[in-house]
Amino acid sequence: MRIGICAPSTPFTRDDAARVTGLAATAHPAADLFFHDQCFVEAGHFAGPDHARCDAFVDLANDPGFDAVWFVRGGYGACRIAEDAVAALKSAAGDKIYMGYSDAGNLLGALYAAKVGRACHGPMPADIRRCGGEAAVLRALDWMLNASPHALEPHVQAGEKHAAFNLMTLAMMAGTPLMPDLKDHVLMVEEVSEYLYGYDRAFFHVTSHLKSAGLAGLRLGRVSDVPDNDRPFGEGAEEIARRWCTKIGINYLGRADIGHDADNRIVPFGLATSSAAP
Amino acid sequence: MRIGICAPSTPFTRDDAARVTGLAATAHPAADLFFHDQCFVEAGHFAGPDHARCDAFVDLANDPGFDAVWFVRGGYGACRIAEDAVAALKSAAGDKIYMGYSDAGNLLGALYAAKVGRACHGPMPADIRRCGGEAAVLRALDWMLNASPHALEPHVQAGEKHAAFNLMTLAMMAGTPLMPDLKDHVLMVEEVSEYLYGYDRAFFHVTSHLKSAGLAGLRLGRVSDVPDNDRPFGEGAEEIARRWCTKIGINYLGRADIGHDADNRIVPFGLATSSAAP
Repeated sequence: MRIGICAPSTPFTRDDAARVTGLAATAHPAADLFFHDQCFVEAGHFAGPDHARCDAFVDLANDPGFDAVWFVRGGYGACRIAEDAVAALKSAAGDKIYMGYSDAGNLLGALYAAKVGRACHGPMPADIRRCGGEAAVLRALDWMLNASPHALEPHVQAGEKHAAFNLMTLAMMAGTPLMPDLKDHVLMVEEVSEYLYGYDRAFFHVTSHLKSAGLAGLRLGRVSDVPDNDRPFGEGAEEIARRWCTKIGINYLGRADIGHDADNRIVPFGLATSSAAP
Repeated sequence: MRIGICAPSTPFTRDDAARVTGLAATAHPAADLFFHDQCFVEAGHFAGPDHARCDAFVDLANDPGFDAVWFVRGGYGACRIAEDAVAALKSAAGDKIYMGYSDAGNLLGALYAAKVGRACHGPMPADIRRCGGEAAVLRALDWMLNASPHALEPHVQAGEKHAAFNLMTLAMMAGTPLMPDLKDHVLMVEEVSEYLYGYDRAFFHVTSHLKSAGLAGLRLGRVSDVPDNDRPFGEGAEEIARRWCTKIGINYLGRADIGHDADNRIVPFGLATSSAAP
């Protein structure tokens, strides 16, 4: 399986790319990883200017020689290219898996909205930098190569529809052309490095937007690295999620095994054709 | 003029309230300031639970004995009560000035969307805490009591429509029931304490939402206290605003004299009946 890797947001390093390639060669010799040179370009905050990040993605997606496109890393930047990028896709782009999370959710959302390929919320090469991150990288490969049910978020069930996003990324997509239709979907959200007041505000925004979307329900992933407020917020992350769901009329279904961490499990968008291993 | 003060977001202190009252008594003896006890209630992050913050605002707004309702402070919380609060307003609420900025923009937006009273983006009592903040407090009173043209944002012109918001507050209102119609308006936005990538993302979101809103144009207020990113973003705040306006097709009109600071000038929402002093 040939997996093309690009950076729609922020740059990666050749050293870390070599670690990921080495890990894959050992554990998954059938995986042929190709890091596009654009992964290593730096332009201010970004992995190259908008047109370069867009072109690298489009080149990989439209190349019939690749079976999957893997987003190397989040950060910020995919919202600036996602609409143009998806508009430039041709038929070869429809056969591929696309995997990432965090800021890459902008591309997952736009791909899913356009019904192109198979968007999957899951680990990225940059997870190699985390403590225990090898497991995350291997989990992504287990899914891409073998459709391993052990890689899936445990609540993923055949016959149900799913989607997963970073909450703030989703908040900023809501109401834009990148936003997919989530009718009948179990929506899983996770958050990182947001104050609880910002997280609460994002829940206000997202639940307002999804009030009439016909969600099957919402699951909350991990909410991690929450900065200390000047005083305690007064509620925990799950209480906040539950309260907004109740207020807006969305079924709160419990927790999800996703997050900005090495344990992040995979959520394929849309109708699941297989269930997670128990 | 009787001015009722409440806290839709976070709490104030009696000491600072006394400073504001003392300043007003000296400089504007015609201003009769009433701090609702709810200003001093603390419940976690908030100035009391949602129902208490909502009730205090509704009580002041519906009381024909008040000529203005002044929001004491921002922080976070007004989005949680604004829809219910405005729905509870009666005819007496229509005669008043409502003034605040930052998180209070949620109430300004909802009031303006409902065509209730005269929403004004301007200083709040909590500005007394800033260096030079007395001038901000007096500017707000100059506008409320005397409609002073020197208090107005310099680009406010009779016969034109205006609105002003904190950018992130506006981003989180966009697409919710709090969002007013901004057709033909000059929209002024300001930002504080956001990373430039978050500011850029908010511009993506806001300009996407306002693409077809028929704005007369956008002006950028001050963008202050920007935290350092892990590497330089690559553009300044005005370049970012200009780029998004160009991309989306919104007229970028230049800077505005608003911001999270003591110089924050006043922007009355809607059709201006008087112009700023030159």
